[in-house]
Parts: sequence; structure tokens; C-alpha cells
Amino acid sequence: MSKSNEPIDLAGMRHSCAHVLAQAVLTMFPEAKLGIGPAIDDGFYYDFELPRPLTPEDFPELEKKMKYIIKQAQKFAGREVTGDEATSFLQEKDQRFKVELAKEFAEKGEKLTFYENVLSNGQIMFTDLCRGGHMEHTGKIGPFKLMKTAGAYWRGDEKNPMLQRIYGTCWATQAELDEYLQKLEEAKKRDHKILGKQLGLFTFSPLVGAGYPMFLPKGATIKKLLEDYITSIKKARDFKFVCIPHLAKEELYVRSGHLGKYDAMMPIMETTEGERMVMKPMNCPHHFELFNSQPHSYKELPLRFAENTAVYRYEKSGEVNGLFRVRSITQDDTHIFVTHDQIESEIEMILGLVKELYDKFGFEKFKARISVRDPKNKEKYFGSDEVWQKAEEKLVSSVQKWTKDYFIGEGEAAFYGPKIDVMVEDALGREWQLSTVQLDFNQPENFDMNYTGEDGKPHRPAVLHVAVFGSVERFLGIVLEHYAGALPVWLAPVQAMILPVSEAFNDYAREVEKVLKANDIRYEIDDANDSLGKKIRNAEMTKVPYMLVIGEKEVTDKAVAVRDHGSKNQEVMSLDAFVAKIKKESQY
Amino acid sequence: MSKSNEPIDLAGMRHSCAHVLAQAVLTMFPEAKLGIGPAIDDGFYYDFELPRPLTPEDFPELEKKMKYIIKQAQKFAGREVTGDEATSFLQEKDQRFKVELAKEFAEKGEKLTFYENVLSNGQIMFTDLCRGGHMEHTGKIGPFKLMKTAGAYWRGDEKNPMLQRIYGTCWATQAELDEYLQKLEEAKKRDHKILGKQLGLFTFSPLVGAGYPMFLPKGATIKKLLEDYITSIKKARDFKFVCIPHLAKEELYVRSGHLGKYDAMMPIMETTEGERMVMKPMNCPHHFELFNSQPHSYKELPLRFAENTAVYRYEKSGEVNGLFRVRSITQDDTHIFVTHDQIESEIEMILGLVKELYDKFGFEKFKARISVRDPKNKEKYFGSDEVWQKAEEKLVSSVQKWTKDYFIGEGEAAFYGPKIDVMVEDALGREWQLSTVQLDFNQPENFDMNYTGEDGKPHRPAVLHVAVFGSVERFLGIVLEHYAGALPVWLAPVQAMILPVSEAFNDYAREVEKVLKANDIRYEIDDANDSLGKKIRNAEMTKVPYMLVIGEKEVTDKAVAVRDHGSKNQEVMSLDAFVAKIKKESQY
Repeated sequence: MSKSNEPIDLAGMRHSCAHVLAQAVLTMFPEAKLGIGPAIDDGFYYDFELPRPLTPEDFPELEKKMKYIIKQAQKFAGREVTGDEATSFLQEKDQRFKVELAKEFAEKGEKLTFYENVLSNGQIMFTDLCRGGHMEHTGKIGPFKLMKTAGAYWRGDEKNPMLQRIYGTCWATQAELDEYLQKLEEAKKRDHKILGKQLGLFTFSPLVGAGYPMFLPKGATIKKLLEDYITSIKKARDFKFVCIPHLAKEELYVRSGHLGKYDAMMPIMETTEGERMVMKPMNCPHHFELFNSQPHSYKELPLRFAENTAVYRYEKSGEVNGLFRVRSITQDDTHIFVTHDQIESEIEMILGLVKELYDKFGFEKFKARISVRDPKNKEKYFGSDEVWQKAEEKLVSSVQKWTKDYFIGEGEAAFYGPKIDVMVEDALGREWQLSTVQLDFNQPENFDMNYTGEDGKPHRPAVLHVAVFGSVERFLGIVLEHYAGALPVWLAPVQAMILPVSEAFNDYAREVEKVLKANDIRYEIDDANDSLGKKIRNAEMTKVPYMLVIGEKEVTDKAVAVRDHGSKNQEVMSLDAFVAKIKKESQY
Repeated sequence: MSKSNEPIDLAGMRHSCAHVLAQAVLTMFPEAKLGIGPAIDDGFYYDFELPRPLTPEDFPELEKKMKYIIKQAQKFAGREVTGDEATSFLQEKDQRFKVELAKEFAEKGEKLTFYENVLSNGQIMFTDLCRGGHMEHTGKIGPFKLMKTAGAYWRGDEKNPMLQRIYGTCWATQAELDEYLQKLEEAKKRDHKILGKQLGLFTFSPLVGAGYPMFLPKGATIKKLLEDYITSIKKARDFKFVCIPHLAKEELYVRSGHLGKYDAMMPIMETTEGERMVMKPMNCPHHFELFNSQPHSYKELPLRFAENTAVYRYEKSGEVNGLFRVRSITQDDTHIFVTHDQIESEIEMILGLVKELYDKFGFEKFKARISVRDPKNKEKYFGSDEVWQKAEEKLVSSVQKWTKDYFIGEGEAAFYGPKIDVMVEDALGREWQLSTVQLDFNQPENFDMNYTGEDGKPHRPAVLHVAVFGSVERFLGIVLEHYAGALPVWLAPVQAMILPVSEAFNDYAREVEKVLKANDIRYEIDDANDSLGKKIRNAEMTKVPYMLVIGEKEVTDKAVAVRDHGSKNQEVMSLDAFVAKIKKESQY
């Protein structure tokens, strides 16, 4: 194990561990053919062709062999070899995949190296064709664990044989390994696909199609609350909500320039009248047509057209994933029409809104990327150098006032304008790219947008494309995992579960129900003939924030015994006090 | 003119008036070729081939000639003629369209009749090939008016020549004619397409396509309020809101049986992965898949899945019309899963909801049609005779309790179940078919729906398809015309217009604004440097319910002078009192 005051080469350690795995596999299956074995995020893998499928049941034996190799502190010794030398050695060992690589490297004139694992007595235990990057000896490899197996085509090409990939993780200390495994365990418990099923939030249907979630009442409630919340903070800032259809003629996307670029995402419908229609993959062109349907004065700007509406993007079926990657994406979209002078103040307003939203969800850590032009290649961008320079300065100064945690992505701007993306860290320390503010000088030209200035003459506005959640579906998935399904009161689909201790108290439970309903509190009632213990266990499973236990004392006092999710304490309070408490907590 | 105690044959009078028009046209254009001239709703038309296009400028002269003919009290005399006789007479008159008809009737062996207009001296002024149905003489024709001209292909076939159609209206009394013309004038002023433009509510774009309205902020506000309102009255009745995507695989509509029946409305998208997708023309199959995604107990029924969501139906371009007939239809849709025992009480609940909604909009007159089986043809309906009989009885008894104004449509039920449609009369006395409750025994079979009964065994539910608005777009159009654009406070996109008398009062106007905003009141402010008179006229044009005039006295008293739309009275009240008043009126 590495000493604590030595800088640790985690990647080297993991790659070394992959060699150890290969050596162990060869002792188990001498006929195994080796593929490649790189270090990856959090660990390593190695690909093998094996006489039988490996399963996790094989891991203990393999791990035992690996530990033995590690204990032996085999030295990693590298030496340069010629192409012929490498090929003949590997052919002799019957390692056809390695032979293929050796020949290829040799043809390209690349330097070839063998890495050998050598015992203290000089015996060579394992030889691999490898570019290197190892620990001094296997004894320096930290605690590891084999994780899973998977199929992987040789060189990622489905025309090649399918190999067995064994994944492992490896860390400098046992504490780090434990923490990693615990986080994985936690993430698994929080998996929004599992929570979605368990809590009855959403479902998929093979008849409807992959990537198209359908929300059951509780999931639809959460989705609606998310949309209502963002609507409320946008309305407070004078965003105007509009409403567009979910399709348009192909011509709209000719005008916007999207057609020809995103065609695979936009299957065409040909109608009986010969019109070629497309389900909208974005809302901008519709909003631009709305803008253009009316004359505008400078007094109206900034004019903010907002809408929570579904766009449709035909993502590849291999890429759809729960709510994280869907083909029907509800966007909290906004297009803001601004004069060039309003860009900075408008961006500051938006960043304020974004921050307010992150605070609401307890996302304390976030960082911004400002995508600007490639300074060496200015001619490929649309719009004058002066306008760009000013815009980029404004973006940077706005972000600087907002957060210290930002970086500049040189050359990452789209050709039509610079942008800001915000990455957020969730409760598990995972990073998600959420909000975007994109400045656009090009579409106002494509759509010939105008407003009448103070001088009575027509002027060209700029457009800001703004999405705060990004995809509401994806955000819902993130939030479910962030809170491990135990949503805060304002967002919980069921806020209170009424639990009469026995059937004798069902009448008062119905009274409580009436009061909650009249106050728009989302509740359920469990009046089954079950023990209180069972009712509480069931309610805990639903992750409802409050359980209202109702027994003799509560009936007499017109009270409820309030029990928080995950807590064993009960606080008795008057029904009125509870209603006031939950109403306050439901506000946003 | 007809005597008042004689029963009036309005259709006969209108058809007679068409003959008078033809006679008048022939005196103006002796070479005119006659088409046909029937009575229609509210009047009549006659089709002509003429040497030049007629315009409304020709109407005074034609009307003068018609009045002269009416004054002559020409007798309508009918006589049977042979095919040869008719053909030779009409050929002599060079009336080729009439010749075509005469030959056709004769070939079919039909009886042919000529109707002649005869002066008291026996002179025949006009002869028409006609099946009859006339007044005794032209003097009995009531007051009439020529209305408009239009192009019409001979026999409605675009391969035939285009004729000129002249429309007229004709009534028993001058009072009735005046009332009719006034109603038309009123309807024109209320035309939702004109109001939509004038009030900046919605627009269409040629790049998006015909039949796809796009709602500007004010129109989107009204649409959202309509949806929020129906949501609130549905939630009060324990409807559960769900959320589905706007498309599905073709296979879903194979399962539901829609594919093959409505294909022209459902253009197919073929994806890069070879899936055939359809924009949903209805929501039922998605909601059924949602139902089927979970196990259900009898305790959950009735289970009401509701959603305000857009369906897409590719209506023919000749049929799209403002908001009345669109291709993107927002439905206030509900599918209720019930046991057979729950059908009656559920329908009564729905009718109660429908009535509450009609009351809200002041629709006092409505009538119900109950569509039942054809009693002579019972075998063509899905489901047992017993179930149908019970269901029909339940529908009838529920409706009887609800309204006296209903009728039975025998044989009008769909093959899968009986239904109720409700027709509503608007402020202009026009009738609109709005709400529908459709009972469905068939789709539960197609989708193999089940719930576990009290007996622990699986049972088949029935489904109720319920739409109250029907199409939200169409309802919005109807409501705009019903209120002539002056929407009630709760539904007005702008509820109050703040009008400072001069710039000196703009500061207080801003204070008023803040208070309104904090109370979620929808307001605008007109702080232009205009006279109060001009501001009031402008505000009247927007049909805003309340104008808040602000001058010296209001500033001093922290008050507002409230002026209702269309009224000249102003009532001064404290700002607090106004806020309380408008909040009360905004409730639903």
C-alpha cells in the first residue's frame, strides 16, 4: 500500500491492478486470450476471451489470486522490443488479439514495449504488450474490488468477437474504497428509475415507445409543481407566457437553418395534402414567428416569451435512459428579445433567477462555463468583432458578479453567439449540467426581427435563449435522486398520510381529511384494518413527509400526532396548527 | 305578405323568392343560364352563369326588379310535363344546365314539373323546371334582402363550370328580417378571428401551418385560465391528473383499433430506427396503458385520469377555421375507469360538473342528446343486450334528473357504447355542441383491463370518455364571441388598466401597480403623455373590465376611481377595497 506522504498515481495503480487481474485470470484459464486493460474513472477493466462465461461468483477466487500476486510485490519491468520480437513472443503464447495490436503498432512505426511482472528471484510471472504507466511493484497497489462483468466487442466493433470485460475498482486506502462502495450503494438506492416504480411516479409502455415517459398521477403532480414553481419565479420577473403547437411545417426549420443539421432527430410526416410537417425539436422558431406577428417598440423590450412545453428529439435507442435522456423533453424555455444595451442587465436578472431556483433545491455548489470565441479564429463567427467582444465582456462580468466558480471555454461558443452553462453538484457530489443562457445574433437576422427604436427607425434585437431546468423530465430524475425520493413538503405528491390508529377513529380521520382538502393539502388516508405499526411502515415506504397519527387523544383534542418521515418522534399539535405549518412549508 | 294567423311556410317562401330572383336576373341578363335555386337555413340561393361577374353593387337594381315582381302577385302554377316536352322547351330557351337535369330526371323515370309565374292577365313571366313547394303567388313573399355572391361549381363538381351563386334572406315580417340582419351584424362584430387580432390574442404563421394557432401572451393567459378552471372543478371531484407524450408507436393504434379508420388524420413519421410513430389524435390509448401499468383494486374505482393536452388531427385545409376548427386541439380529456355499478352515479357527478361550468359562463340554455342503439339492429353493438339496456336506462335516468331538455337519438350510439352530447346556446342564440360523455365497453376488452374485485377475482371495468370543453381552442373562440371580447374579470387577460390623468400622477400609479402585482392581479399601465379621454378610449378598445383613473384626489386619498368597461360612471374607492373586490371576482 502506498505511503501517505507519497503523491499517489491512482491511474497507474489502477492500470497495474488490471495487469494483476490478467495474470490471475491466466492462472485460472491458461487458454484465456487477452484484449486490453486500461485504467478508467474510479477503477480499471480488462477484456478477455474465455472458455466459459465468468460471473460474480468467480470474483472471490480471482480476488484471492490477485491478493496473492499483490503480496508478492512483483516488480513491473518495462523493456523495448522490436515488432518481430513482440509478434513471435505473442504468437507463441497464442495471444491473437495482442498479436494484432503488435503488428499494427509496428506498421505505424511506433515503439513497442513489454511490461513484465518479475518476482524477487527474477522469475517472470506475466508479460503484457503495454505502453506502461505502472507502480514500482504490485505491492504498491491499494485496496481493490472486482465489480461486474459485461460483454464488449473487440475494439468496440460489432463485427469482431464479443469478449468478456471484467470491471474493478481500486483506491489508495481502505477508507476511500469503502466510501466509494457506500456511495455506489447509496446511488443505487436513489436510482430514479427504481424510485419511480416504487413510488408509482411514471412508467413506459412498449406500445408508446422507448424514451417517452408517461406520468402517473403522483409523478404528474411533481412535474406540474416543478413547472408551476419555475412559472411563478419567471412571472415575478415579468416573463410573458405563450403557447405554441408541437409541430410546424418543414419550411420553418429551413428558415431557422436547423433542417439539414438535425434531420435524424426530426422525422418528417407527409400529410394527405402533401405538407411536410415536423414535431418541433426546439421552440425558438415558433417564438420568433410569434414575435414577428406583431409590431414592437423599444418600450416593450426586454420582451420575454416563456413556455413549459414538450419538444421531440429522436435520440438513439441506445442513449435513452429513464428520465435522464428522453425523446419527449419538457423544456422550461424562454426567448428574450433585447436591445444590445440590455444584454448585461438581462443576464444578471437571469442568473439571479437561476440562483433562486438552486437555493430552493439546496444545490449549494455549482460552477459556470462561459463559452466564448476561439480568439485565433474570429472570422468563423457570425456578427461583428465589436459586438462579440462587448457581449463576451458582458457575459464574463455578469458571471463574475454571480459566482467565483467559473471558467472560460475558449472556442466553445456556437457560431451565432457566446453562452453560459451552469453545472450543479447534487447531494451525492455528482455533477449535472443544468441551466443555459445562450446569446444569439444570428436568428434575429434569419427571421428579420425588428423593433422600432426611440429614433423611430427599425432596429435588430438580440435574442437570449434561456432554460433553467433544461429538461423538466431530467431535472425531476435528478431531484428524485438528490432527495433519495423523500421530496420536500412543497414538492411531495402526497404531503400527509392520515393514519387512524384503529377503525374507531375513522370518522375523525374523515374530518381531518375534509380540512386538508379544503386547504389544498395533498393527502392520503390509510383506513385499512391494519396495526398502526404496519401503517407507519407502509407510509415510510411512500416517503410521505408527514404521517398524521389519530387516536383517542387526538379525537378529544381536535389534534393530530405529527410524525416526520424517517423519524420516530411524534409531535401532537392542533389540526389548525398543522394546517398552518404545512401551508407555510408548501409556499414557494 | 303573409297574414299573421296563417301558418307560415318559410321554406316555401324562400324557395319562391329564389324564383323571383331568377326572373329578375333574366330581365337583367336575358342570356343568363340558370342552375338550381333552393331554400336554405335563413334564406335561399340561386346559381347562374352570367356574362359578367355580379357584385353587391348590382343588388339594389336586382332587388328593385324583385320587389316589382312581388308586387305583381304573380301566381305560381305547376304542371306536369313529359321529358321530351321539358327538354325541347329548355333547349329552345338555351338553358343547358336545366336541359341536363331534365334529361337525367326523365332517364330515371321521375315525374317532371314546370312551375310558371303567371300574371293576372295570364301572361307567363318565368318558367322553371322545379319540384315545387311555393307560395300561392309572389305577393305572399315576405321582406327579403340579397346578401352576397360566391363561386360554386355546377353540381359541386370542380370539373364543371364555375357558376355565380347569389345568396338572399327572406322572412315573414320586417321585424324578423331586421332582427336577423342585426344578429348577423352583431356576430360579425363578435367574430373571434377579428377579436383575436384586435386584442392580440393569437396568430397563425404560414411557416408553422394552417390550423395551428399560436397564442400570444394575452391569448395564452385566457387559455391557461380556462384550463386551470376546469382543472380546479375536476380536482374538487378527485380527478387525478396524469401526463403523456404527444405521440406513440403505430402499434398503439393497432391495439385500440383506430389505425385503418382515421389514417388521413394521422400522418406517420418513420424514424431512423425504423419505428413508425404517430402524433396522438386522441388520448384514450395512452391513458389505458397508464391504467394497465399498475394493478388495481375495486377500492380505487372510479379512477379518473384527467389531462389538458393537445391532440393532433390533420383536418382538411378547407375545413380549418380560426379557433373553431384547428389541427392542434387541446382537450380537457378524462377517462374514468368504473365498475358497472358505478356508471349511473359517475354520470350524475359529471353532469353536475358540466352544469357548474355552464353556470360559470352564463350558458343558461342547453339540451342533451342521448345516443342509444338502434332497437331493430341490436346485434351490431359490442357487449351483451343486458349490459346495454341497463347502461341506456342509466344514461336516460341520469339525464332526466339533470334537464328536461333532452332527446333520444335512436341508432346514434357508437358500436362500443351509448353516449350523451350536450348542445349549448350562446348569447346570440347560436347552438354549439360542447360536452360529451361516452360509455365504452369495448376498449376495456381491447386493452384487457382488469381490477381485482371484492371477491379477489379479476373483473373488467367500463370506461367513460369525458370532455367538457371539448376543444379548449374552440371553446375559447365561442367564449370570445359569447362575451363579444369583454371577458368577465376572472377570465380577462388584463383585469385592470391603470390610467394616471397626467404624468404628475405616474408615481402613485407605480404604487398602485406594486399593490396589484403583489396581489396577482393582471394589470397594465398607460403612462403615455396622452389626454385621459384618449387613454379611456384606448382602454375601452382592449375591453379591459376595469379602468383605474388616478388623479389628484386619488393620490391624496390612496384611492382609485374605478370605471367599468362600457360605462361612463366612475366609483372612487380605496385601493384596498378595489383589490378585495377584484380578488373576489377573480375566484372560481
